[in-house]
Amino acid sequence: METQRGFPHRVVIIGGGFGGLYAAKELADTAFQVTLIDRRNFHLFQPLLYQVATGALSPADIASPLREILKRQRNVQVLLAEAVDFEPGRRAVILGDGEISYDSLIVAAGMQNHYFGHDDWRPFAPALKGVEDATEIRRRLLFAFEAAEREADPAKRAPWLTFTVVGGGPTGVELAGALAELARDTLRKDFRAIDPAESRIILLEGGDRILQAFSPCLSRQAEKALARLGVGVRPDVKVTRLSGGEVECISAGTAESIRSKTILWAAGVKASPLGEALARRTGAAADPQGRVLVTPWLHLRSHPEIFVIGDLAHCAGADGRPLPGLAPVAIQQGQYAARLLKARLEGWTPAPFAYRDWGNLATIGRAAAVAEIGKLEFSGFFAWLLWLFVHLVQLIGFENRLLVLIQWAWNYFTWNRSARLITGEVPSRREKGD
Amino acid sequence: METQRGFPHRVVIIGGGFGGLYAAKELADTAFQVTLIDRRNFHLFQPLLYQVATGALSPADIASPLREILKRQRNVQVLLAEAVDFEPGRRAVILGDGEISYDSLIVAAGMQNHYFGHDDWRPFAPALKGVEDATEIRRRLLFAFEAAEREADPAKRAPWLTFTVVGGGPTGVELAGALAELARDTLRKDFRAIDPAESRIILLEGGDRILQAFSPCLSRQAEKALARLGVGVRPDVKVTRLSGGEVECISAGTAESIRSKTILWAAGVKASPLGEALARRTGAAADPQGRVLVTPWLHLRSHPEIFVIGDLAHCAGADGRPLPGLAPVAIQQGQYAARLLKARLEGWTPAPFAYRDWGNLATIGRAAAVAEIGKLEFSGFFAWLLWLFVHLVQLIGFENRLLVLIQWAWNYFTWNRSARLITGEVPSRREKGD
Repeated sequence: METQRGFPHRVVIIGGGFGGLYAAKELADTAFQVTLIDRRNFHLFQPLLYQVATGALSPADIASPLREILKRQRNVQVLLAEAVDFEPGRRAVILGDGEISYDSLIVAAGMQNHYFGHDDWRPFAPALKGVEDATEIRRRLLFAFEAAEREADPAKRAPWLTFTVVGGGPTGVELAGALAELARDTLRKDFRAIDPAESRIILLEGGDRILQAFSPCLSRQAEKALARLGVGVRPDVKVTRLSGGEVECISAGTAESIRSKTILWAAGVKASPLGEALARRTGAAADPQGRVLVTPWLHLRSHPEIFVIGDLAHCAGADGRPLPGLAPVAIQQGQYAARLLKARLEGWTPAPFAYRDWGNLATIGRAAAVAEIGKLEFSGFFAWLLWLFVHLVQLIGFENRLLVLIQWAWNYFTWNRSARLITGEVPSRREKGD
Repeated sequence: METQRGFPHRVVIIGGGFGGLYAAKELADTAFQVTLIDRRNFHLFQPLLYQVATGALSPADIASPLREILKRQRNVQVLLAEAVDFEPGRRAVILGDGEISYDSLIVAAGMQNHYFGHDDWRPFAPALKGVEDATEIRRRLLFAFEAAEREADPAKRAPWLTFTVVGGGPTGVELAGALAELARDTLRKDFRAIDPAESRIILLEGGDRILQAFSPCLSRQAEKALARLGVGVRPDVKVTRLSGGEVECISAGTAESIRSKTILWAAGVKASPLGEALARRTGAAADPQGRVLVTPWLHLRSHPEIFVIGDLAHCAGADGRPLPGLAPVAIQQGQYAARLLKARLEGWTPAPFAYRDWGNLATIGRAAAVAEIGKLEFSGFFAWLLWLFVHLVQLIGFENRLLVLIQWAWNYFTWNRSARLITGEVPSRREKGD
C-alpha cells in the first residue's frame, strides 16, 4: 500500500479541468502534498464555451484562475507547465521544461478535437475546445456578416451568409441554436445592405438523428426546436471534404456541395496524447478513442498509484458501456480518486466507483432545452430554466455567477449579445478567399 | 457651401472612437447619409483599458459593437474597413479594398503608439492601445509571476519579479498603480515559492515629475500615493536601450541597467499615419506629433468639407496651446463638427469650437486618484470616487455599466481581479529568454 511509504506523500494531478480540480479540492485539509499541473492558468467551464463563441459571454465569465480557486488550500501548489511523458518506474512526470516526481498520480488531461484523420480540415473548420477557439469562432461568425454587408453580388454574398455546423451532438446543437438566434434576433437591425435573418444555418449529422445520447423522442423535440429557429437539420450526411468556403458531402448516396464560408466542427474528440503516452509506458490498454482503460477503482491495473479520470478514462458504467465524457462524471471521479487515496492512508479500500447519474441536459437557443432525468424526459422552457439553474450554480466563483446571471437576464430580455467583438488578427476579405 | 450641392449629402466618418462616434450620434434624425468606417467592429472605452491589462475587467466590458450603438440610427451605415489614403480632388477615401466617396469628411483616426524611432523596442515593451495590447500585457504580467514561481535560483528569479513602466503620464501611473495592487494584494496568497508582494515596480519618467498635465502639487500627491503602493517613481531618467529582460537608461548623467523581464511602454503616442496622408494630399500642415492643423471650425483651411477631430487634430485651446488628447475633447469636437454640418445646411456658420474643460482625473490604485476641476485640486478617496463615477456613466450601454460596477465593487471588497487569464500563444520559459 502507498501508505507504507509514509509522508510526505506527493500527489501530482495533471489537468485543471473538472476531474483534476475536484480531486485537488477533495484533498483539502489532508497531509498530502498536492501539485496541480496545467498548461493554462485557469479552470474553464467548458459547457458554456459556445456562449463565448456566439458573443453572449466573455471568456473571463466562464474561467477562473486555478490559483484563485485553490489559494486557501495551502497543501496545493499550482504549476503552469505542460506534461509531455511519464516514467512510471521512477514515478516521474516529464514536463516540457523539467520533471516532477510523485507518490500518487492522477491523470485528468481530457480530450482534444479530432478530425478523423483529416487534420488538413482544421484551418477551415475550427472546433470549440479552448478559449482561443471560442474567440476565433466568434471572429469568423461576426466577420462573415461584415463581409456579406460589403458584398454587392448576391451570388458571392450567399456563401458568407451560409453557416455549417458539422456534428449533431450537444455542442453542435447548442452552437447552431445560438448562431440562429444571433442571426435572427441579435443582429436583425444591425446591417443596412443585408438581412442577417436570411442566413442559412445547416446542422450536418452523420448518424440518423441528432443528440444520440438522448432518447429518440427528445431528439425529435430538439429537431423541432431547431427548425423553429430556422436551423436546417440534416441527418445521415457524411462530410467527404472541407475547404475554405465549401463542404462536400454524401447524403443518401448522392454527392453534394454546400457553399459556406463559415464551417464549425463539432463532430469529434479524441483523448489527449498523454493517454497514449501513459498506455505505452505502463502497458495499459486504450480504446479506439485513445481513452485509457482503468479498474473499477479508476487506477491502472499494473500501477495502483496511477489514476486516470474524466474524459481520458475508459470506465465502464452500470450498463457496461463506457461512461460519457460529461462534467458530472469527471467531478465524481476526481472526488472518488481523492477519497480512495485518503482511504488507503487509513488502510482500507472503498467500494468501486459508481457514477451517480443526475440526468442529461442540452439547450437549444435562448428558451428551449431537452432534459433526461432518470426516467423523466421533458423539453421546452422548463427544461431551459433547469439548464440555466444547473449551469449557474456550477460556475466557480460567486462573482462569475452574478455576472453571468445578469448577462443572461439582459440577453434574454433584450435579445442582445454584448460580447460581439472581432478581436485577434483582423482579416481582410481577400485573405479569406473569395 | 456644401448645402448647395443638395441631397443626398454623404458624410463619411473615419474612426469609431470618441470623436467619430459622437459625430455620428449627433447626426441622428437628419437627412445626411452617414457612413462610419472603422477597422474594428467595436467602440473601445480607452480610459479603462489598463483595467483589462491588469485583469480586473474583460475586453467586452469596455467595448461595445458599433453596429449595436448605432442600430436604431437608420441614416448611419457602419463599415468594417481600413481607410488608407485620400483623394480630396475626387472627394474619395481610399480603403484597403475599395473606395468610398463623400460630400463631407470627418477624420477621427486618433493616435498610435510611438517608440521615438526605436521601433525595435516594440516586441520588448508592449504599449497599451488596443484590446489585443491589453490581453498581451495581461499575459506577460501573469506569466512573469508563473515563471518566478518555477525559478529556484534567486538571481534568475529577481528579473521576473521586476516590472518596469516607461512613461509617467496618466496611462503609466494607472498601469503602475494597478500592477502594484495586483502583486501586493490580489496575488498575495496565490503562490507557494514566491511572495508576489516582493515584486519591484519601477515607473520611469523622462521629465522632472510624473503627470505633467496636472499641477506640481498633484504630481507630488500622486507620487506619494504610488510610493504607498510600493511603486518606485524615478523622474529624470532617459531610456537608452531596451531588450528582452533589460532596461538601459541614464539617470543624473550616470548610465544604469535594470534587469526586468516585463517592460511596459507608456511613453509616447503619435498621430495615425492617416494624418500624414491627409496633410500630403491637401497641403495642410502637421505638427511634430503628426497632428493635422485645423481652423477654429475644425476643418482644413484649404478644404472646408474635410474636418479633423479628436487626438488627430491640432487645435489651439484658449491658452494658445494645442488641446490635449483626451476623450472629452474628442467628444465635444465630434459633436461640434456634426452641428456645423447641420448649420451649413441652414446656411449659417456657428462660432468657432471652444473646449469646455470639465477637469482632469487620474487614478492611482483602487482607492486614490488626483483631480483638477477648474481651480479646484484634490486627491485621495473622494477623487477616486469621482473618477469611478465619471467613468461609469461614460461607458456606453447600460449592461456594461452594471457589469463593470459589480466587478469594481467585488474587486474593491475582495481585492480580487477575476479576469486573470493567460490567453493567446502560451509561452515557455525558454522562449522568453533565459
